[in-house]
Amino acid sequence: MPKRVAVIGAGPSGLAVLRAFESAKAAGVEVPEMVCYEKQSNWGGLWNYTWRTGLDEFGEPVHGSMYRYLWSNGPKECLEFADYSFEEHFGRPIPSYPPRAVLHDYIAGRVERSGVRKYCKFNHAVRDVEWDETTEKFTVTVSDLVAKKRVSEEFDYVFVCNGHFSTPNVPSFEGVEKFLGRVLHAHDFRCADEFAGKHVLLIGSSYSAEDIATQCHKYGAKQITFSYRTRPMGFDWPESFSEKPLLTKVVGKTCHFKDGSTAEDVDAIIFCTGYLNHYPFLPDDLRLETRTSLYPANLYKGIFWEKNPKLMHIGAQDQFYTFNMFDAQAWYARDVVLGRIDLPDYATMHADSEAWVARLGTLENADQMIDFQTDYVRELLEPTDYPRLDVDTVARLFKEWEHHKVEGILTYRDRAYPSVITGNVAPVHHTTWMKALDDSLEAFLNQPASQAAE
Amino acid sequence: MPKRVAVIGAGPSGLAVLRAFESAKAAGVEVPEMVCYEKQSNWGGLWNYTWRTGLDEFGEPVHGSMYRYLWSNGPKECLEFADYSFEEHFGRPIPSYPPRAVLHDYIAGRVERSGVRKYCKFNHAVRDVEWDETTEKFTVTVSDLVAKKRVSEEFDYVFVCNGHFSTPNVPSFEGVEKFLGRVLHAHDFRCADEFAGKHVLLIGSSYSAEDIATQCHKYGAKQITFSYRTRPMGFDWPESFSEKPLLTKVVGKTCHFKDGSTAEDVDAIIFCTGYLNHYPFLPDDLRLETRTSLYPANLYKGIFWEKNPKLMHIGAQDQFYTFNMFDAQAWYARDVVLGRIDLPDYATMHADSEAWVARLGTLENADQMIDFQTDYVRELLEPTDYPRLDVDTVARLFKEWEHHKVEGILTYRDRAYPSVITGNVAPVHHTTWMKALDDSLEAFLNQPASQAAE
Ligand SMILES: Cc1cc2nc3c(=O)[nH]c(=O)nc-3n(C[C@H](O)[C@H](O)[C@H](O)COP(=O)(O)OP(=O)(O)OC[C@H]3O[C@@H](n4cnc5c(N)ncnc54)[C@H](O)[C@@H]3O)c2cc1C
Ligand SMILES: Cc1cc2nc3c(=O)[nH]c(=O)nc-3n(C[C@H](O)[C@H](O)[C@H](O)COP(=O)(O)OP(=O)(O)OC[C@H]3O[C@@H](n4cnc5c(N)ncnc54)[C@H](O)[C@@H]3O)c2cc1C
Ligand SMILES: NC(=O)c1ccc[n+]([C@@H]2O[C@H](COP(=O)([O-])OP(=O)(O)OC[C@H]3O[C@@H](n4cnc5c(N)ncnc54)[C@H](OP(=O)(O)O)[C@@H]3O)[C@@H](O)[C@H]2O)c1
Ligand SMILES: NC(=O)c1ccc[n+]([C@@H]2O[C@H](COP(=O)([O-])OP(=O)(O)OC[C@H]3O[C@@H](n4cnc5c(N)ncnc54)[C@H](OP(=O)(O)O)[C@@H]3O)[C@@H](O)[C@H]2O)c1
Repeated sequence: MPKRVAVIGAGPSGLAVLRAFESAKAAGVEVPEMVCYEKQSNWGGLWNYTWRTGLDEFGEPVHGSMYRYLWSNGPKECLEFADYSFEEHFGRPIPSYPPRAVLHDYIAGRVERSGVRKYCKFNHAVRDVEWDETTEKFTVTVSDLVAKKRVSEEFDYVFVCNGHFSTPNVPSFEGVEKFLGRVLHAHDFRCADEFAGKHVLLIGSSYSAEDIATQCHKYGAKQITFSYRTRPMGFDWPESFSEKPLLTKVVGKTCHFKDGSTAEDVDAIIFCTGYLNHYPFLPDDLRLETRTSLYPANLYKGIFWEKNPKLMHIGAQDQFYTFNMFDAQAWYARDVVLGRIDLPDYATMHADSEAWVARLGTLENADQMIDFQTDYVRELLEPTDYPRLDVDTVARLFKEWEHHKVEGILTYRDRAYPSVITGNVAPVHHTTWMKALDDSLEAFLNQPASQAAE
Repeated sequence: MPKRVAVIGAGPSGLAVLRAFESAKAAGVEVPEMVCYEKQSNWGGLWNYTWRTGLDEFGEPVHGSMYRYLWSNGPKECLEFADYSFEEHFGRPIPSYPPRAVLHDYIAGRVERSGVRKYCKFNHAVRDVEWDETTEKFTVTVSDLVAKKRVSEEFDYVFVCNGHFSTPNVPSFEGVEKFLGRVLHAHDFRCADEFAGKHVLLIGSSYSAEDIATQCHKYGAKQITFSYRTRPMGFDWPESFSEKPLLTKVVGKTCHFKDGSTAEDVDAIIFCTGYLNHYPFLPDDLRLETRTSLYPANLYKGIFWEKNPKLMHIGAQDQFYTFNMFDAQAWYARDVVLGRIDLPDYATMHADSEAWVARLGTLENADQMIDFQTDYVRELLEPTDYPRLDVDTVARLFKEWEHHKVEGILTYRDRAYPSVITGNVAPVHHTTWMKALDDSLEAFLNQPASQAAE
């Protein structure tokens, strides 16, 4: 009997797993039978945009957290696949900060060409994973959402690739239940146009707060107030922005903050308070319990559930690195499944992950965090045949990017960087980000008529 | 070993079950051990208001579909418990159309006094129900959301009381993904104030469409457009309202309808397209599959899953009758569990439910539907010791209510009806519904200062 591998989720992480095994197969290696369960009707994960919020047409939680007009918030050069460059996909260099549709096209293009669609069962939501000590197999129970049937199948390995930026973390604040306007989490944010002319309060001081606020500004919001728990973002914001400490209570449309100050006539409160790692389909003894972290505890190499390393996670950590880190993880895990890499015993694995967790605790700034994740990715890449990826250059780009954001939070996306894979420098985009109101793939790749006329 | 009964959900239906068994126990009867799993932190079901939408603090789908300023849309006299009148609860007669908080207080009051809280496990979401042919027991698997643990327990009977107005039915329409405003389902509607000054399009022509639209109007919406699939509601709407046939496509902020007409400058689209009966915790062979219906197929007496009648549903049907119908069902089902009523064989049960389903197919108008559900409730009440409920009078009140709505969709809630239980006529409320902007229990029960001054 060939071994069987289940992959839960066909976002960038799950697709990295499919691609990793397919690339071994193409090289003539005998690989296990792959089955990828994806609850959405297509692949791409968060990059597969949906207008829906809350629950979907099957009553399942909507996975999508991305919104219209979302542009990459890091340079594409930092996430480029080493085995499939942007240039290979688009036939020419493209600018450094593409909108969502362009990145979706890129992710999908690689896997479409590798022919792994046949392993994917779409509209299949994984409900339960059980491990049988005796047979040493997992039973994975899945709802076929279209046929309205449950199916159970046995597997030797399970890859958990369901993402962790989909289940909103929504704290409560005094009086929020009587706020006279809209309250939502970033997860349900879709269309900035809705907030034109409005005063928007955003709770949180990380990527979502920063990006949703600047986007609302771009599409006409009147006023932006941020409320931070730990520290303000401190960017050089437009005049209509202000940063306040934590919200203490809401009275009508007035928001009160910890320093005694208020924001008046608030029209909408957007919780940009992050997400929960959420694995409702995993039983207690197999379930990772962690908050968003650059190194969740109990995962050897950030991948293997130490108590049962046949259960693997891809992309479970907080992310500077994304697509290429998922590749590094997938290639490493694949080589373990193929018997090319041996795992040490539990104690050794656990000591190793604890050392990483301890180092994480010492980090003091973004540059150190970038170095931390760079070291992690480097360590994974070393023993595999993943094409060479110069992570030191990627780390340098990440640090430049951080500094460019400080130099101009509304202009950093107008910069261009060299590809780590091809060495070619990206062209400057035909339109500055603040003026680029159309986020379609067509508008991005073609000089739009309006621009040509300018 | 005493028998064990699991109740899934502590809304009005689940609470009716607890109350039914407790009332037998109070009369000296030996009753099974009861366990009620409720995923929210308190009882009351939909009546337990939450400001949250989408997913809750545990990543579970938010159950609540009720909104601020929601008032009963039928006379309270039609839903009054026969064993606990409004007068008994409030100490005096109250007006016929109470706001949500008042009805919640009434529902909770009865069960609080019966001492059934001890059977409830709050923050427990049922994940799975399995039937074992050999042991003739159900295994119910539940997530303890606070402890983050799964627990499984065995039961002899299971009552499914999870409600069916929580999982939104959300069809798609051409262009909706590019609509330049807010799109939501009624399930996620909370605060009408948000729509003041707006043009709101509501899809659907039933209770939610009617009530959310009139409420938005009450709190200052500029314009209301309805879009119906089958037929317009045809009430005597305010001037700013119009009814259009089905939406065909959305372009920017313009909505196109089947008759070629359009609605311009639409700010928000609210899907009032109903809900799905959704039982994700039931396996294929135990799962009811039905759309909203006054008589779902395969349920004997509208309660018993015919293929395994130890699995019972309370409140699974579409509802003219609510609280008192749930009582009628709960008392009947209790008597089956206690061995006071015998169930016939499968063929007889199925023929009986099929006859009801066939009659349902012949109904042509609301009056006939009211008679249909009245006959159903009457049949359930007859063999039990539930206190006498004059369903013919209830049916008459329902028909009057229908006519009063036609006479004035903004004024029908200003009417008063006699209690079917006590015979006392309800007082007229101190404020007409259109002027009653404060929906709190306090404002409803007390003459507010502003009113006293008038
Ligand atoms: C708003 C937002 C913007 C972002 N922008 C960027 C960016 O600009 N650049 C960048 O590099 N990264 C960005 N990210 C980070 C993002 O996490 C990664 O780019 C990437 O999408 C993670 O891939 P993944 O496969 O791990 O998870 P996801 O993309 O979340 O994919 C997980 C997949 O699993 C499926 N799934 C979930 N549960 C089940 C189940 N029970 N059964 C079956 N299938 C299931 C989902 O439907 C989904 O398809 C952003 C994240 C967010 C939230
Ligand atoms: C917007 C709206 C307004 C309404 N207004 C009226 C009105 O004015 N008058 C009227 O008579 N009726 C009204 N209704 C009808 C309403 O259905 C009933 O009044 C009543 O709430 C139904 O009771 P229930 O117990 O069957 O369901 P619910 O009230 O929905 O309660 C179900 C309970 O089950 C719990 N639950 C769900 N899944 C699980 C799980 N997996 N594990 C554990 N617990 C679970 C839920 O948290 C909830 O507490 C309205 C309905 C809606 C949607
Ligand atoms: N492409 C894009 O443009 C884009 C846009 C948005 C998001 N993203 C991605 O999405 C992912 C998630 O980012 P995120 O910003 O949503 O989450 P995040 O980075 O985890 O940040 C969560 C924020 O919420 C705050 N917070 C958490 N709990 C809180 C509470 N109880 N009260 C107040 N504040 C609280 C945190 O504050 P503390 O600092 O005090 O902990 C932090 O500021 C990232 O990978 C990001 O790159 C990308
Ligand atoms: N207390 C209150 O004031 C209040 C307020 C709101 C709701 N409620 C209660 O909530 C419950 C649910 O009411 P509801 O109105 O949400 O649901 P509902 O009564 O089931 O009505 C669903 C509506 O959606 C329409 N619809 C369904 N699918 C559609 C599609 N694909 N395209 C267009 N239209 C579609 C239906 O049209 P067709 O007619 O063509 O099928 C119908 O008009 C009821 O019990 C109601 O009493 C009470």
